[in-house]
Amino acid sequence: QSSVTLFGVIDADVKYVKTGGLAVKKLDSSGLNTSRFGVRGTEDLGGGLKAGFWLESEINTDTGVAGAASGGAFWARRATVSLTGDFGEVRLGRNKTVSRLHLEDFDPTAFTGLGSVSAVYSNLGSGNGTSFGRADNLVSYSLPANLGGFYGGADVSAGEGTGTNKGQSVRLGYKAGPLHVSGAYASTSNAADTSKFKLTSIGGAYDFGIFRPSLSYTETKFQSRKQQIVTASVTAPLGQGQLWAAYTDAKANAAAETTVTGYTAIGDAKLFAAGYIYNLSKRTALYTTFSQLKNSGAARFAVAGAPAATANGLKSTGYDVGIRHSF
Amino acid sequence: QSSVTLFGVIDADVKYVKTGGLAVKKLDSSGLNTSRFGVRGTEDLGGGLKAGFWLESEINTDTGVAGAASGGAFWARRATVSLTGDFGEVRLGRNKTVSRLHLEDFDPTAFTGLGSVSAVYSNLGSGNGTSFGRADNLVSYSLPANLGGFYGGADVSAGEGTGTNKGQSVRLGYKAGPLHVSGAYASTSNAADTSKFKLTSIGGAYDFGIFRPSLSYTETKFQSRKQQIVTASVTAPLGQGQLWAAYTDAKANAAAETTVTGYTAIGDAKLFAAGYIYNLSKRTALYTTFSQLKNSGAARFAVAGAPAATANGLKSTGYDVGIRHSF
Amino acid sequence: QSSVTLFGVIDADVKYVKTGGLAVKKLDSSGLNTSRFGVRGTEDLGGGLKAGFWLESEINTDTGVAGAASGGAFWARRATVSLTGDFGEVRLGRNKTVSRLHLEDFDPTAFTGLGSVSAVYSNLGSGNGTSFGRADNLVSYSLPANLGGFYGGADVSAGEGTGTNKGQSVRLGYKAGPLHVSGAYASTSNAADTSKFKLTSIGGAYDFGIFRPSLSYTETKFQSRKQQIVTASVTAPLGQGQLWAAYTDAKANAAAETTVTGYTAIGDAKLFAAGYIYNLSKRTALYTTFSQLKNSGAARFAVAGAPAATANGLKSTGYDVGIRHSF
Repeated sequence: QSSVTLFGVIDADVKYVKTGGLAVKKLDSSGLNTSRFGVRGTEDLGGGLKAGFWLESEINTDTGVAGAASGGAFWARRATVSLTGDFGEVRLGRNKTVSRLHLEDFDPTAFTGLGSVSAVYSNLGSGNGTSFGRADNLVSYSLPANLGGFYGGADVSAGEGTGTNKGQSVRLGYKAGPLHVSGAYASTSNAADTSKFKLTSIGGAYDFGIFRPSLSYTETKFQSRKQQIVTASVTAPLGQGQLWAAYTDAKANAAAETTVTGYTAIGDAKLFAAGYIYNLSKRTALYTTFSQLKNSGAARFAVAGAPAATANGLKSTGYDVGIRHSF
Repeated sequence: QSSVTLFGVIDADVKYVKTGGLAVKKLDSSGLNTSRFGVRGTEDLGGGLKAGFWLESEINTDTGVAGAASGGAFWARRATVSLTGDFGEVRLGRNKTVSRLHLEDFDPTAFTGLGSVSAVYSNLGSGNGTSFGRADNLVSYSLPANLGGFYGGADVSAGEGTGTNKGQSVRLGYKAGPLHVSGAYASTSNAADTSKFKLTSIGGAYDFGIFRPSLSYTETKFQSRKQQIVTASVTAPLGQGQLWAAYTDAKANAAAETTVTGYTAIGDAKLFAAGYIYNLSKRTALYTTFSQLKNSGAARFAVAGAPAATANGLKSTGYDVGIRHSF
Repeated sequence: QSSVTLFGVIDADVKYVKTGGLAVKKLDSSGLNTSRFGVRGTEDLGGGLKAGFWLESEINTDTGVAGAASGGAFWARRATVSLTGDFGEVRLGRNKTVSRLHLEDFDPTAFTGLGSVSAVYSNLGSGNGTSFGRADNLVSYSLPANLGGFYGGADVSAGEGTGTNKGQSVRLGYKAGPLHVSGAYASTSNAADTSKFKLTSIGGAYDFGIFRPSLSYTETKFQSRKQQIVTASVTAPLGQGQLWAAYTDAKANAAAETTVTGYTAIGDAKLFAAGYIYNLSKRTALYTTFSQLKNSGAARFAVAGAPAATANGLKSTGYDVGIRHSF
């Protein structure tokens, strides 16, 4: 009677990363998809009602460490219970925010690995990253599935006495045939709960069959600081696999470029990443990625997994070859 | 040949808790049953002999943290291997003590959530809570099942060089038809292994069909300090669910009400809790709970999940609405 | 389509251990086999190619703690993804080194429990134990299975900027009919990456049916320090089980017996261990072990799980009785 599914991904890559003069060769984890281990299930309650649960834990294949990312909890990727019906879905627990779900839809890497667009996202000193990540104490609602292509959701995370946890996000999208458009808005409090980090983003993609271009624009704001991030990308089926490339241009405003007590200035950055995924089967793929990030002004961004920048305006690059196996 | 069962509970509630003037709204975990993930199995060895194992890990649905309670071990709820036969069962590993099993049988919440009677249990400065919780290094024995309603068990936990781990408990009960009576005795050492915390408890319940009243009396003692705890409760089937209410009166003796170096005085407390569980299916339920705890004298108890009391004699209350899904 | 196997071992023993005048009685874990919980699977990719993954986490049955050994990562025993074909197997992730696999093949305890030969292995001040343990960032290669009894493997672990992780090992063996011979070589860097710990080992065993003698010789070296370890052992089927005994003689050279800044001198040691494993079924066994370690010179070794030696040249002994259940 209990229908439980054990699922996961084990992904490992051999990686070369360099920021400025610092270079490292690595065996790393999660080059294409984040390595994970999970348990999930649904129960039909009758009358169109369903209960479900989802537990998901990150794995670092290179070291065996579990749940290190996203704050260190074992089930940090997801721990939810939900009720689904004609009204949509209500989900409780730790989970991705809907604004994060929007953002990763318009990054060919889905915010994962060397080419992840997340490399150039700054919290602008707000101390809060749930709007492009995951949140504790989340109550989220999703629209039902049968709205002729329209979909959407909203979530609120309870502060429980601290601004750090407090936030909300909404998303509305349309996906039908070759077309996909989506918009999201999120706001999260700083620890003192005195001001809010705000994120507004729109994205669109069209699948021409031989290739699928995608474009997104995101604006973030905290007090007087602002960041504007444009990502243009394309994916194309090629042989038994998929080719992809993405270009991101991130600009900081003058306030964001100014260091003040408790805040380290950021600058502008341009990120170019490309890769090829070769499918050995539906579950197993070999892949390769190239990524290059150029900082200007006070920017010290680095591609994921690369050494931290030790000076302003350095270049950060990476290559990898890896294997991803899902179960 | 390997018959392994994956099982668990995901439980989340929206909660309002208040102690004195401090109030918090929360998305919390484990309002009705403790959220958990486990693996268990048995093997038939022939001749009436069975081997079995049980691994169980707590989950905080709100944050994704695993195994936080009971000292932080991942499999802190249970990690045992056992052998069962005509002689009964011998079980080795971390587990609930039999005195804890006795106590939770006479609390409608089974020591879980807002209404848990455990809120008023003090260790009286002994530093040891295994007699109403779980213990490491446990060797436990249970009587066989076919004793005409009689059941019982005993356990010993090895000190391994420190008094903190050292303890033993016994339990004897009778459960047949509508009647259930049980008695338990436990003793655990303080860290220095110089004196013992002792717990004696009896409980009884009778199921009249339309309702089931239950009564228990527990006495704890450490050096000259004493606590006496009476719990009267009732559960009643109502519609597609169950109504329950419990009233607990905890009294401390004069010695327990006196602060000395290394011990913070406790006082008297009265706890009233009630709730309704609405079953959507055998595995999934919606529930609501109300709980109120009144401290007097030096008492600073609080209902589970509420802010800690900042002064003597405050009132602590809580409400919640939640969902529990088991798999 | 996803063929995932949940597997594990729960092993607990009642143990008495003593080093010098310090004695402890314990309920302990992993007396015969290390308690563990794992998930693994393979996928047939066609053309003789297979993908596979393996996740394995240690369990302390006595406390419920997961993954404590081998550095503390949850999946510290193993987290790998692999590709197998006519060419052999390439495996990426955290895993045992091939030199460790060689060593445990010639210890009847497979480096586990009271009698483990690992008790007398020193890292000679190199700070590195991956050559007789497990390593992060491991890329390993195994020869294919069909080489007429010959087998072998090699691995490299990436330093990723620190000598602590850096190492490699190779192994070549022959196993056919009653004969088994194997040789291994490993080298690992110290933290500063200025010198290498080196291990060379050969072993052989022959199965006469009524008993199987085994002999191994291992030499380790770090700077001017050396250790020579000879293990002679025998296993014999007896009734519904297996009897085993092992004798190990470990000698340190003069440099290893000299304490210098940052290095504590070791000395010579003789370890005798014996045990009986009684199989209740293929999956479940009762067992008993006796182990005695005699230190001489500056040696302060102790049998696994015994109190650390507080002076040079003490004797360390242990007895246990336990149960192991696999699933």
